[in-house]
Amino acid sequence: MRLAYEHLLQMCATILTAADVPEDAAHLQARLLVEADAREHASHGVQRLPTLIGRLANGVANANPRIAFDWRSESALVVDGDHGLGPVVVTRALAALQERAARHGIALAAIRNANHLGMLAFYLEDLAQRGYVALAVTTSEALVHPWGGRDAMVGTNPLAIAVPAEPEPLVLDMATAAVSMGRVIATLHEGGELADGWALDADGVPTRDPAAAIDGALSPFGGVKGYALGIAIEALVGALTGTHLGRDVTGTLDEDCPPTKGDVFIVIDPNVLGIVEPEKHVGAYLAEVRDSPLAAGSADIRIPGDGGRRTRSRNRQAGVPVADATWQRLCDLADQAGVPHAV
Amino acid sequence: MRLAYEHLLQMCATILTAADVPEDAAHLQARLLVEADAREHASHGVQRLPTLIGRLANGVANANPRIAFDWRSESALVVDGDHGLGPVVVTRALAALQERAARHGIALAAIRNANHLGMLAFYLEDLAQRGYVALAVTTSEALVHPWGGRDAMVGTNPLAIAVPAEPEPLVLDMATAAVSMGRVIATLHEGGELADGWALDADGVPTRDPAAAIDGALSPFGGVKGYALGIAIEALVGALTGTHLGRDVTGTLDEDCPPTKGDVFIVIDPNVLGIVEPEKHVGAYLAEVRDSPLAAGSADIRIPGDGGRRTRSRNRQAGVPVADATWQRLCDLADQAGVPHAV
Repeated sequence: MRLAYEHLLQMCATILTAADVPEDAAHLQARLLVEADAREHASHGVQRLPTLIGRLANGVANANPRIAFDWRSESALVVDGDHGLGPVVVTRALAALQERAARHGIALAAIRNANHLGMLAFYLEDLAQRGYVALAVTTSEALVHPWGGRDAMVGTNPLAIAVPAEPEPLVLDMATAAVSMGRVIATLHEGGELADGWALDADGVPTRDPAAAIDGALSPFGGVKGYALGIAIEALVGALTGTHLGRDVTGTLDEDCPPTKGDVFIVIDPNVLGIVEPEKHVGAYLAEVRDSPLAAGSADIRIPGDGGRRTRSRNRQAGVPVADATWQRLCDLADQAGVPHAV
Repeated sequence: MRLAYEHLLQMCATILTAADVPEDAAHLQARLLVEADAREHASHGVQRLPTLIGRLANGVANANPRIAFDWRSESALVVDGDHGLGPVVVTRALAALQERAARHGIALAAIRNANHLGMLAFYLEDLAQRGYVALAVTTSEALVHPWGGRDAMVGTNPLAIAVPAEPEPLVLDMATAAVSMGRVIATLHEGGELADGWALDADGVPTRDPAAAIDGALSPFGGVKGYALGIAIEALVGALTGTHLGRDVTGTLDEDCPPTKGDVFIVIDPNVLGIVEPEKHVGAYLAEVRDSPLAAGSADIRIPGDGGRRTRSRNRQAGVPVADATWQRLCDLADQAGVPHAV
C-alpha cells in the first residue's frame, strides 16, 4: 500500500516517542526510515522499526544516550554513542566534522556503540549539498563469504561517497554484497529464485534457492574485487574504531545484542584546498556523461544518486510504498503504544 | 624471459639517469616498475619505461621538478608536482602525510601535475607496515563506459586501501574496470577472446573481440556498482584537486601530453585515535578468514595483498618475468643511452 510521507513519518515518530525517545531524536530516526522507503530501499525502511522498538525495550538501544566526543586532535574525533540511535549519534558527529572540515580541510570520526545507521546516503547527500566531499564506511553482521570460502565471515559493509555537483550532488551508497539479505528473504516469501552469483549454500556451492542461501552465505558483488573491497572496509573500520569484526558483529538485525559494529566518516572541504566552485567542475563532467550516447538497449545513463532522487520525488507525490505486512506490524506497534494510525 | 630482480632494477635506473633523472629518483621509479613485474602486473611494469623515456624527452615528464607543497592546514596538503615522475612526487608527499598523521591522526594530500603513479600498493603497503591506515584514489584516461552508455567517459580509476595487520598488512589495489586495456591488447596479440562482460564495441554492444573492444570501451567491474564506484572516484578526485575529468585526462599512456589527472591520498594513525595494536586485532580476524572452510572447488582463501606478496617472493627467487618484446625495447633504450645490458 501507499502512505502519505508526512503521515507515515508522524506515525513512526510517535511510536518512538512513546518508547521514551525524545521528540527531536524520534523525528530524525523516523525520517531516516521513511526516506529509505521513499527511495524504495525497503530493507532500510520502516520495516526496521519493530526491531528498533524491541531493542529500546531490551535496553540494547538507548533512548537517552550520553554521547561522548573525544577530540584526539583538531581533525580527529572518537565518538562513543552509548548505544544511542544511529542517526542521533551520527548527525551530531557530522555537524562537528563539518565545522572542523571548514576550518582544517579534513575531519574524521571513528564511531563505536551506535545503533544501525540505516541508509548512508541520507547523511552524505546533505553534506554534499553544502559543498563538502564526504566518505562513510561501516561494518555489519557477517553475511558474506570470502572469495574461495564457504562461511559468512564478512559484513555487507557499505561504502558511501558524496561529491558536490550542479545541479545535484553525486551520492554513491552501496553494500559490498551482491544482494541484500532482505531481498533474499523477500524472494523466499514470493517463491522466486535468486540470480546467478548471489549466494552459496551451506556446502559452498552456488545456489539460486533462497532458503539454501539463508543457510549459506551471500556472495560479494563483482567477484573477487568486490570481496576485496568488502574485507578492506571491515579491516579499516576495525583498525580505526577497535570494534568487533566478522562473526563478532551483532546488534543491527537482532533485538537483544549490543551494537558491536563500527562506523567511520571523513568530511573534506574542497574550498580549504583552494578549489573554487568544485560543484561546477564536477557538474559539467557529470552532465557530459549523462548526455553521452546510449549503449544498445539502454534507456538512460544515471549518475549515482539520480535514481534515488527521482524515485523519492515520485513517491512523495504518489505516496510511500509500504508492504502490507510491514504496515500491519506498524499498526500493531501503534496500538500497543496507544498511538492513532488512521490513514 | 626471466631476469634477476637487481639486474633489471639497475638497468632501468641507469636508463633513467641517462635521461637526466637524478640517481635517487631513477632508482625509485625503476623499483616501482620492477616491483609491478615481480608481482606479475606487467601493465604497470617495465613495459612503461619506453613511454616514460619518451615523455622525459618530450618535456611532459620533468626529470628535475620543483615540487610545491602548499599546506592549507596542519592536515591538508596541496601538491603541485611540476610534471615530476609519479613516485618521486608521491613518495615525498607521503613522508609528509605520515608525519602529520602521527601528530594529528589524519592527513590528506591532493596532488596535481604528477606523472603516472603506477601500482598504488607499492606506496600503501609500506605505510601499513609502519602502522598507518592509508587510502588512495586517482583518475586516469577515460577507457570505461558509464552504465547504460557506449562511449569511454570514465577512467579505470583505481582505489587502494591498506590496513596494518599481523603478520602482513591487508593491501587492496584495484582498478574499477573489469579488465585492463593492457590485457585487452595482449589478448589481441595472442589471437584470443575476451570474457563476457569485459567490453562493449563502438556501437555499445557487448563484445568478446579485443579489436572491437579497443574501438569501443571497457566495462566497469561488478556491473552498475562498479560503475558507480569508478565515477564516484572520478568526481571526488576532480572536486579535491581541480584536475581534468573524463576525456580531458591525458598523460599516463601517451608520450606527448601533460599529465592532467589527479591523485588523492589519506593517511590515518590508529594510535592517535586511541586504538592500541590494531594490527593484532585485524590480524586475528584475517587469520580466522584465511582458515575458514573452503567453497566447493576452491584451493585457498586470500586476503588482499597475499597473492601479490607470494608472487613477488617467488619471482625474486626465480627471476622477474618480462615479455620478450618488452626486453627488446629495454635493450634498445639501453643501447641508445650507451648503457650495458648483459644478463
